[in-house]
Amino acid sequence: MKILVIHGPNLNVLGKRNPSIYGGKSLGEINKLIEKKAKELGFEVEIFQSNFEGDIVEKIHSAIDLEYHGIIINPAAFSHYSIAIRDAIEILEIPVIEVHLSNVFAREDFRSKSVIAPVCSGQITGLGLNSYLVAMDALKLMIK
Amino acid sequence: MKILVIHGPNLNVLGKRNPSIYGGKSLGEINKLIEKKAKELGFEVEIFQSNFEGDIVEKIHSAIDLEYHGIIINPAAFSHYSIAIRDAIEILEIPVIEVHLSNVFAREDFRSKSVIAPVCSGQITGLGLNSYLVAMDALKLMIK
Amino acid sequence: MKILVIHGPNLNVLGKRNPSIYGGKSLGEINKLIEKKAKELGFEVEIFQSNFEGDIVEKIHSAIDLEYHGIIINPAAFSHYSIAIRDAIEILEIPVIEVHLSNVFAREDFRSKSVIAPVCSGQITGLGLNSYLVAMDALKLMIK
Amino acid sequence: MKILVIHGPNLNVLGKRNPSIYGGKSLGEINKLIEKKAKELGFEVEIFQSNFEGDIVEKIHSAIDLEYHGIIINPAAFSHYSIAIRDAIEILEIPVIEVHLSNVFAREDFRSKSVIAPVCSGQITGLGLNSYLVAMDALKLMIK
Amino acid sequence: MKILVIHGPNLNVLGKRNPSIYGGKSLGEINKLIEKKAKELGFEVEIFQSNFEGDIVEKIHSAIDLEYHGIIINPAAFSHYSIAIRDAIEILEIPVIEVHLSNVFAREDFRSKSVIAPVCSGQITGLGLNSYLVAMDALKLMIK
Amino acid sequence: MKILVIHGPNLNVLGKRNPSIYGGKSLGEINKLIEKKAKELGFEVEIFQSNFEGDIVEKIHSAIDLEYHGIIINPAAFSHYSIAIRDAIEILEIPVIEVHLSNVFAREDFRSKSVIAPVCSGQITGLGLNSYLVAMDALKLMIK
Amino acid sequence: MKILVIHGPNLNVLGKRNPSIYGGKSLGEINKLIEKKAKELGFEVEIFQSNFEGDIVEKIHSAIDLEYHGIIINPAAFSHYSIAIRDAIEILEIPVIEVHLSNVFAREDFRSKSVIAPVCSGQITGLGLNSYLVAMDALKLMIK
Amino acid sequence: MKILVIHGPNLNVLGKRNPSIYGGKSLGEINKLIEKKAKELGFEVEIFQSNFEGDIVEKIHSAIDLEYHGIIINPAAFSHYSIAIRDAIEILEIPVIEVHLSNVFAREDFRSKSVIAPVCSGQITGLGLNSYLVAMDALKLMIK
Amino acid sequence: MKILVIHGPNLNVLGKRNPSIYGGKSLGEINKLIEKKAKELGFEVEIFQSNFEGDIVEKIHSAIDLEYHGIIINPAAFSHYSIAIRDAIEILEIPVIEVHLSNVFAREDFRSKSVIAPVCSGQITGLGLNSYLVAMDALKLMIK
Amino acid sequence: MKILVIHGPNLNVLGKRNPSIYGGKSLGEINKLIEKKAKELGFEVEIFQSNFEGDIVEKIHSAIDLEYHGIIINPAAFSHYSIAIRDAIEILEIPVIEVHLSNVFAREDFRSKSVIAPVCSGQITGLGLNSYLVAMDALKLMIK
Amino acid sequence: MKILVIHGPNLNVLGKRNPSIYGGKSLGEINKLIEKKAKELGFEVEIFQSNFEGDIVEKIHSAIDLEYHGIIINPAAFSHYSIAIRDAIEILEIPVIEVHLSNVFAREDFRSKSVIAPVCSGQITGLGLNSYLVAMDALKLMIK
Amino acid sequence: MKILVIHGPNLNVLGKRNPSIYGGKSLGEINKLIEKKAKELGFEVEIFQSNFEGDIVEKIHSAIDLEYHGIIINPAAFSHYSIAIRDAIEILEIPVIEVHLSNVFAREDFRSKSVIAPVCSGQITGLGLNSYLVAMDALKLMIK
Repeated sequence: MKILVIHGPNLNVLGKRNPSIYGGKSLGEINKLIEKKAKELGFEVEIFQSNFEGDIVEKIHSAIDLEYHGIIINPAAFSHYSIAIRDAIEILEIPVIEVHLSNVFAREDFRSKSVIAPVCSGQITGLGLNSYLVAMDALKLMIK
Repeated sequence: MKILVIHGPNLNVLGKRNPSIYGGKSLGEINKLIEKKAKELGFEVEIFQSNFEGDIVEKIHSAIDLEYHGIIINPAAFSHYSIAIRDAIEILEIPVIEVHLSNVFAREDFRSKSVIAPVCSGQITGLGLNSYLVAMDALKLMIK
Repeated sequence: MKILVIHGPNLNVLGKRNPSIYGGKSLGEINKLIEKKAKELGFEVEIFQSNFEGDIVEKIHSAIDLEYHGIIINPAAFSHYSIAIRDAIEILEIPVIEVHLSNVFAREDFRSKSVIAPVCSGQITGLGLNSYLVAMDALKLMIK
Repeated sequence: MKILVIHGPNLNVLGKRNPSIYGGKSLGEINKLIEKKAKELGFEVEIFQSNFEGDIVEKIHSAIDLEYHGIIINPAAFSHYSIAIRDAIEILEIPVIEVHLSNVFAREDFRSKSVIAPVCSGQITGLGLNSYLVAMDALKLMIK
Repeated sequence: MKILVIHGPNLNVLGKRNPSIYGGKSLGEINKLIEKKAKELGFEVEIFQSNFEGDIVEKIHSAIDLEYHGIIINPAAFSHYSIAIRDAIEILEIPVIEVHLSNVFAREDFRSKSVIAPVCSGQITGLGLNSYLVAMDALKLMIK
Repeated sequence: MKILVIHGPNLNVLGKRNPSIYGGKSLGEINKLIEKKAKELGFEVEIFQSNFEGDIVEKIHSAIDLEYHGIIINPAAFSHYSIAIRDAIEILEIPVIEVHLSNVFAREDFRSKSVIAPVCSGQITGLGLNSYLVAMDALKLMIK
Repeated sequence: MKILVIHGPNLNVLGKRNPSIYGGKSLGEINKLIEKKAKELGFEVEIFQSNFEGDIVEKIHSAIDLEYHGIIINPAAFSHYSIAIRDAIEILEIPVIEVHLSNVFAREDFRSKSVIAPVCSGQITGLGLNSYLVAMDALKLMIK
Repeated sequence: MKILVIHGPNLNVLGKRNPSIYGGKSLGEINKLIEKKAKELGFEVEIFQSNFEGDIVEKIHSAIDLEYHGIIINPAAFSHYSIAIRDAIEILEIPVIEVHLSNVFAREDFRSKSVIAPVCSGQITGLGLNSYLVAMDALKLMIK
Repeated sequence: MKILVIHGPNLNVLGKRNPSIYGGKSLGEINKLIEKKAKELGFEVEIFQSNFEGDIVEKIHSAIDLEYHGIIINPAAFSHYSIAIRDAIEILEIPVIEVHLSNVFAREDFRSKSVIAPVCSGQITGLGLNSYLVAMDALKLMIK
Repeated sequence: MKILVIHGPNLNVLGKRNPSIYGGKSLGEINKLIEKKAKELGFEVEIFQSNFEGDIVEKIHSAIDLEYHGIIINPAAFSHYSIAIRDAIEILEIPVIEVHLSNVFAREDFRSKSVIAPVCSGQITGLGLNSYLVAMDALKLMIK
Repeated sequence: MKILVIHGPNLNVLGKRNPSIYGGKSLGEINKLIEKKAKELGFEVEIFQSNFEGDIVEKIHSAIDLEYHGIIINPAAFSHYSIAIRDAIEILEIPVIEVHLSNVFAREDFRSKSVIAPVCSGQITGLGLNSYLVAMDALKLMIK
Repeated sequence: MKILVIHGPNLNVLGKRNPSIYGGKSLGEINKLIEKKAKELGFEVEIFQSNFEGDIVEKIHSAIDLEYHGIIINPAAFSHYSIAIRDAIEILEIPVIEVHLSNVFAREDFRSKSVIAPVCSGQITGLGLNSYLVAMDALKLMIK
């Protein structure tokens, strides 16, 4: 059982961004925790980060051939306007969970609106890096 | 370690409501799964359901005295207008996670707006009854 | 054949409220006319009033077991914000007709919007107490 | 006692339009039921259909001289923009009831807004052809 | 001369809620000050708190029979959506003053809008517990 | 202890303006009542009226040097657009109370919005000339 | 010198419509005053009324060939939605003045918006039948 | 194979209207090109123009009986508000293509919104008279 | 018979402002034409210009004592936001006509909205300096 | 004569996306039909697909040097937000036609808005792959 | 070469206003730096401050006669509503630069909108007192 | 001291785009002027252009390590929607100035909104290529 974790723009410099909102961990540290959790759950995990919308669209396309059993995506800023990513996800038939580190509903107004959420299975927000980890728990339960 | 799970209006008749959206399980069955999961996680769990906004407000008040270590609330319809529940949650200092069975972002426009989300720690939506279960995983990680 | 008539908040003090809008009859007098009409139509009728949203939600739940053949509801103020009542009605499979004494479209802007109307069979407004009576005629025609 | 029933645009081809929304009956069949009901109620009834806003405006003008005791109008598409029909109805002093076959509140957003409703006595929607029949019951009660 | 003071939802736990906004006094302490002030003004005062919209609606109904000479209501969260309370107040013929502890205009956008204010005599906001006390002064001047 | 009372535009012709909304008293009569109340409360009071936004801005500036212990301002029409007055008030560190004679929430839509309220301590509306008098009571309580 | 006066829908029954808004004169009486004024100004005048948008569009087309030196149009209800009439007027090169009997800005919100005004030379509103007469004065001054 | 081409309001005076937007050709000249193209494609073509919404509604009704294999409609101004025409088209089962001479998206805001487009097969805009010609090509391809 | 003509801000430099919109005449020249017309109509006329909102408010106040029989006001930019001027005009009982040189409806969106129009008798726009002259004709007809 | 056809994001996986909306053909198959049609029309055609906004911007730049006589672009998701592509097209002086496979006006609200359409020559939507083919017919007619 | 610097309302008390937003310098100190910079650039500079919109309008009028080669204006609060100042600036033919001390886009929503910016040459915001100094650099470059 | 200048999409073809808005200079020519100015100010300057949002995001990331003392960014089209670039800038602690060649407030509505401005130090617009040059002056003053 293999899952794909996608990190959107600016997440590669995590840890340098407002720690009171995002926590002080780097992406590398988060990825380690994801991999550890994957091992616990018996998942194979592939992790992908890009600051390019086109890269993320094409990574999602690679899931059309059912290479993965589920996707966890933190679209970061792209949540709010990337209809291209929305359209890519809409094609898939596997579960896709949108996650956010921060509580997007408690910040600027524009962060409350995700153009991607309507085509995902579900959304997990505001739990810090735990958003990723419980999304993995959820995939475990959904794929079973 | 004790948590409180609150089910909002109409959830008592779950299983009779549109099964393609909410799944076919009754609230009793879901509660059993919540209790089973609690046992696995080493949680004591109290479950509360009401169709009355005032009841839910007062139940939340009971957490001011720190009787619980965390709350999971599915406010159902109240998500969209109960500022009274929002104000009650805002008083608390323990983690509160809002959950929804269905993907509220994929339904009527008014369901995209939660007046409660900005004062919760986080939100989990669209995972069916798993929304409750992974919220419990999240509380486990947050309370540690 | 049995129907349920639900009166929402403030209708218990009808007759004391702006008579140029609501007419001068008390709720007791209106209920007598409803019962008289029921007899004419061969209906058994149960009448229920509450100022509590939760009470109305639970009364509607009692119709899930098909105790009634149809419901007439005047949600009064709840029309404009009670998504909890909307969700309760949406579960039912019997005809539900929303009625209003006054012409809600000729008053304050916010009264033009009913969150409940989309899940009812139909809506009858502005006919004074006749709104109830012709709703009963309609149920007669629909249940046949 | 004489009433006027006005059918707005496209109602002349009723029965050919989406039967799941409008029912499968033709306008001729509906008119027969209206005439039958009129006879039962002791009404004289005149029925008028037009696809021309101007025709409907002028038909309404003919009621200024009190030729009729009440009007039932299904403005169909004109509900949503014909301020000319609104202004014509506003002149009248007899009861006017707006009716719709379908539940306009459960369809496209623009169908929720009637520019005509504020100047009518009341509105009856969503009851199929029964919308006309109970409107006649209502007129009977109002004219008495 | 007798007045009624109504406290809305969450005010029973006052003092535990954000003290920088609401001040640190408990509701009991505030009520004592209200009673002291009443004595000074020669008022009999009845104080009522509820977290239930329906309770507040029914308490207001009790004023229809002119048991009180004036009402002071802090609707708290209900200010922003309880049209049921608005409709109840609209029936009364005695002066009703809406009060708020905090300056609702300096907080979240949704707190600027009171659905209740248009049917009250006036509104006093932002003066902390003094909002209640000067409302009593005002009633004194208005009832004279 | 000295306070400043500012009357905004058109208040100099009070008594000639719609008496059913504003009461029939002239500004001179109101000022006498303010002065009488000041004496009762042991306040020195300065009263200022202008139809010029710039005059009011500069009068408020004179309070930066703490010449007054509190300000009562009825900005009248300026409430709705004078960001210049808002900015002037925002500089002050003494309590400022916005007052209105009429219930601005029960009139034209644009009167519900005060650009000044968010930077005042509080707002008192709809109590006629009593709005000024109880604002003085409030200042008494706040300055103590 | 020849001008065209166009009266829109419902103006043929003028005098029967709300006299406090429109004055009590019939269209015939107004037309007499228009003709009298035309004679004074040395104008030839043609007067046209229709309740049909299409008729008005085609009447305006007849002015493309410069049969008239100016047009006065009271589009009545059509002001607010007839883009067809707007497009017809936009073709013309002679002065066109939009007139209204009542002060459209002091009535329902939707009457403040004229889709026709932007393509006319000017607009005269609220002067009762004098709106027509001074529009004729204006044409006299403009055509000179 | 027979198609129907409908020209909406003001198109009969084409060539006299802003040539920089609409081109200088008259409707007669355009119709000749449509007929020439029809001949090339082996179509029988009927051309209809009206400034009356009702005429266009009824012409569309004539297609219910499948007299035509496809319709090309330039609704002109009616695009933006004629829900009556929308409802008429919605009944049909043959392909209907909406065309516009000008690029409606590059003009006044209100021209961007077509109430008719959602019920057509497709829309072709901005190609001048070629909009009609390629719509014919499209029908050829669709009817095949 | 005496009238007052008020010119708002920037009109003192007329003739230097965009002549294609406002015409090339200076205010002095326009005032001469107004005075000439006044003489023809048998009016005494007082002309007033100010760039200060407060000055205009106070000039309007001088009409409360019925010194004038009517007012013509070109509020220029103040049309769009001066609620102070609106409130001043609302007090008057004589006819007040708002005029504009340019067609405000054919320019920037914000110029379509006059906060002053609802409290005037009527409005005349887009006729260049003739807007003033025919407003005088209108006053003549109204005061008679 | 050479044209450029640009396919936007997700079109490379066409055929795998909702076939009831987009048809079941792959992009390769569509491109073959485009090339066949080009040959018939005597066009040289270059076809370009990218999921990267930047790639499309730069491809459009290559047309500044007039390498092509016309462009057909299906911006897919980019229609709704890529102002960068809009700005790139605005520089060109050759005809550019925007095409869409599906009827964007009959889907989610946000798909009705194209930020690109205002700077194109025209738009063709809803004709399936025929949208491309008749766009080529149109270019043939426009370039001639 | 002479330039005019205009300071809008409340800037005369600069240094007393929120120093974290506006810096702690007084207007006198800023003016000294402006004069020093002017000397460096070889400019003659005139500095003007007023809290009266009318004063600023008239100061701008003095530039119609080309007394200055450029204007720098910090309209402060007037940015957001003074259409009178906008209209005054629109008349000028010399460069006008709008400046703000604070980053208006990072504060309350209403500060993002300047009604004045569209008629200026450009706008410089957020650079503290440097906003004035680099605006002078810009004028130097523009006037050359 | 080293600064970074970022040019957004389409700026590489500057000089070919509407010269009346953007001036006729190519990007190469502008860059020369930027480099000349840098030399005068004693700055080292790095210039970067990309049509790819991802490239710009990553270039900004390179500033996290404080390689530069300040950034000047002309985000061009990305101003209006690239929240990814906004988030990247928000991480930085050095001054960032947003510049635009044209006066974005005097063009299409959507150009008035910059999602980037709130996280920059300031914004300079409308000064043509001088926007870059005075931004450099500003950085000089800010970094000192």
